[in-house]
Amino acid sequence: MLKPLLWKPEEGVLEVLDQRLLPAETRWLRCDSASAVAEAIAGMAVRGAPAIGIAAAWGAVLAIRSVAGQEDWRQGFDRQMAALGAVRPTAVNLGWAINRMRESVAGVERAEDAVSACEAEAARIEAADLAANRRIGELGSRLLPDGVTVLTHCNTGALATGGHGTALGIIRSAWERGALKGVIATETRPWLQGARLTSWELAEDGIPVSLIVDSAAAALMAAGRVDAVIIGADRISRQGDVANKIGSYGLAVAARAHDIPFIVAAPSSTIDPRLARGDDIEIEHREASEIWAAAGLSRAPKGVETLNPAFDITPAGLVSAIVTEKGICSPAEGQGMELLQPSA
Amino acid sequence: MLKPLLWKPEEGVLEVLDQRLLPAETRWLRCDSASAVAEAIAGMAVRGAPAIGIAAAWGAVLAIRSVAGQEDWRQGFDRQMAALGAVRPTAVNLGWAINRMRESVAGVERAEDAVSACEAEAARIEAADLAANRRIGELGSRLLPDGVTVLTHCNTGALATGGHGTALGIIRSAWERGALKGVIATETRPWLQGARLTSWELAEDGIPVSLIVDSAAAALMAAGRVDAVIIGADRISRQGDVANKIGSYGLAVAARAHDIPFIVAAPSSTIDPRLARGDDIEIEHREASEIWAAAGLSRAPKGVETLNPAFDITPAGLVSAIVTEKGICSPAEGQGMELLQPSA
Repeated sequence: MLKPLLWKPEEGVLEVLDQRLLPAETRWLRCDSASAVAEAIAGMAVRGAPAIGIAAAWGAVLAIRSVAGQEDWRQGFDRQMAALGAVRPTAVNLGWAINRMRESVAGVERAEDAVSACEAEAARIEAADLAANRRIGELGSRLLPDGVTVLTHCNTGALATGGHGTALGIIRSAWERGALKGVIATETRPWLQGARLTSWELAEDGIPVSLIVDSAAAALMAAGRVDAVIIGADRISRQGDVANKIGSYGLAVAARAHDIPFIVAAPSSTIDPRLARGDDIEIEHREASEIWAAAGLSRAPKGVETLNPAFDITPAGLVSAIVTEKGICSPAEGQGMELLQPSA
Repeated sequence: MLKPLLWKPEEGVLEVLDQRLLPAETRWLRCDSASAVAEAIAGMAVRGAPAIGIAAAWGAVLAIRSVAGQEDWRQGFDRQMAALGAVRPTAVNLGWAINRMRESVAGVERAEDAVSACEAEAARIEAADLAANRRIGELGSRLLPDGVTVLTHCNTGALATGGHGTALGIIRSAWERGALKGVIATETRPWLQGARLTSWELAEDGIPVSLIVDSAAAALMAAGRVDAVIIGADRISRQGDVANKIGSYGLAVAARAHDIPFIVAAPSSTIDPRLARGDDIEIEHREASEIWAAAGLSRAPKGVETLNPAFDITPAGLVSAIVTEKGICSPAEGQGMELLQPSA
């Protein structure tokens, strides 16, 4: 199975598949410190909310290993965790994973025990993500009738998670049981996750996939060529507002206008219990150069501003279903997210 | 004033600004035959429905000059016109300009007179387009309240026309009278007309412009940052359905969902009197490589299909206003296009 992260305990290294080079090249980065992991996350060598959480967990293991010989190991660990937690603001999984790692050493006295506790916790986080994805795929694929064509946005596959995928997990599970006709993948500007990652992942699995530019989605819906939209999520509010890759909201608006189900797939850890409404989610704005690179420029021409929000918010009212490993609810029909929230 | 086409009568050459190289490089192609003009249109060195029409008109002049010494000049001219008319199917202006050029020589006996007739007609088409754009700008800018931020798609500026622009003509006129706060330009995948041409054109004129990826438009509308959407058109049906650059329809759906006026600007020649409904418009599908180039690939990875429609259809019901040089009508309110159609 395709995996974006490989933990090498003997070497003290997290190997990170450099997704910036796919599909042309398969190269692994060797991260031997929490700051190297932070750099891989900030630079988007690894991306996708669940994969970011798992990478951060292994980054915590590297941090605790690096300070284990020091008197004030706990302070050093906290400092590294604070820096790691700050590299990307929108995905809830980063902070969630770091909290879990900190909690895993909270009651521990000795540094050696803290190292073992961190290693065990990171392994649990990774294994739980994979299990959650398989369950999401199973549950979500039951929502789809036979012969369905699904439109998806960004990359929510094995590359974005511990394996299998969230939205792509549903798609994979639907394909396995013969219900799927094919997938329409948006290229997902500016970073082209759909073109470079999703279409490549699906083609590797032999699942029929057609790539489109993001702006062609509405016309294909009008032409009756899309039966459902399934996307992932970076953060979900208590009432079911969804922060996800820029463009998700426009797809939700278009899906509603054409009476097409709009389904969100995410591990329950993506639901932020402290967050009442999506409007309160901080949206990351990224560099102009990410957009301009496609035009062969390293920055905007003189006199041109650039707005590059990486995410947008889809309000609960447009979300037909949210599928987590704990079950399915329908925010559009006023079903709250309480049932799906991670146990405290 | 910026112009994409320069006719050099003494040299028998149409100089075409190669828009594929902008904004990095300003290079002019020298077209000395109708087939060279056809190649410039097919390869998108010149693009934008009105500019394509004007280029075709000068292409007709090159055609008639090339056959003027032949006995069967009329046949030769017709053959070249048929080839030129076939290079791009969606924009009405190409066929419209070619028909006007053919009609200009219909009653002419002598080849020398046909050459003069063609030259005069091409000059009239170009001058009329510029006058129409100025009139569109004037009329359309009156629709906008003061302090407005306008979102536009693709390039409908001086580069797409004989000068001034259609949608950008309205924007320029609004700027001149102090009503415009600024412009949000979509990058317009796959060809990046918004990034490479529109933002460059506006910055050259000192008009504040912010570039976004296409899929960010809906989120900006939800945030209250867009007061009107103004786009151009490649073909308009009798009832007001609009064929325009892929993504226009999605913008119209999002504009409606946020109660934002959706305005279309085009010379009246864009209205196709033979066309009852937009569904009958032939949509050009272009090469997969246009999309994949942004990911650094010359073609789709193995196993991946690509759908690359260049245009979509916005039904009349979503079009708040169509502005031509002959006046304004509101298809969304059931106003027919008869008043705006070009006189026979």
